[in-house]
Amino acid sequence: MGMKPARSSCPIASTLEVIGDRWSLVVLRDILLRGKRRYRELLDGPEAIATNILADRLARLEEWDILHKSRDPEDRRQFVYTPTGRGLDLLPILFQLVRWGLKHVEGTEVPVPRARLKDERALERTIRARFAPVR
Amino acid sequence: MGMKPARSSCPIASTLEVIGDRWSLVVLRDILLRGKRRYRELLDGPEAIATNILADRLARLEEWDILHKSRDPEDRRQFVYTPTGRGLDLLPILFQLVRWGLKHVEGTEVPVPRARLKDERALERTIRARFAPVR
Repeated sequence: MGMKPARSSCPIASTLEVIGDRWSLVVLRDILLRGKRRYRELLDGPEAIATNILADRLARLEEWDILHKSRDPEDRRQFVYTPTGRGLDLLPILFQLVRWGLKHVEGTEVPVPRARLKDERALERTIRARFAPVR
Repeated sequence: MGMKPARSSCPIASTLEVIGDRWSLVVLRDILLRGKRRYRELLDGPEAIATNILADRLARLEEWDILHKSRDPEDRRQFVYTPTGRGLDLLPILFQLVRWGLKHVEGTEVPVPRARLKDERALERTIRARFAPVR
């Protein structure tokens, strides 16, 4: 699936139409930064996403060609979700959300050493390499 | 108002709790990037935000110390909204949303020359300087 026409010509409003809800970005965080791939793994997080919301957001993200859904090679009855190139291009947005949260919201922390966050480009390359075989 | 404790220790989830809805970021785009300051100006956009949503989001953004509300010096019966330091720190998130939208959503464009977007730090400095007298 290619690009879809935007309702607004503003790139911010258009991007927010795709990923501009809290849950989509939390799901993408789990897949891109926490290595989760399966529905069951995604359901199991501290934010306690509801099953219907998770199913809806996964379907939307697949429809927007941000996630790719495929059979789980370890269990053919299950599916795994992996990011497409468009999905990986959301990494800088996630990094900026991390940065703002760490600076401005008390009690937030990251599970990776802060030094790694300093070189966001290197971190992005590492994450992209992890998903390289997908497409 | 200082920082508020986070419900989740994840900086992404915490940031999204503050600005993780489409309209908050559209309002911030109008104030930070389009020079809008007044309720009436914010109401008047291509995305046609509803009055109750606009009022709610402005109140939330003020409560979170992202926007500062003050009397309009040109008309003391009105108010103007300007970004605080925390609000200005959202600029890199907006820039990344622009970048993703321009690359992946057909029909999007920016009202500034694309060359200016290439140097995001310089653009950020220019915008920060514009709001410098606020706090």
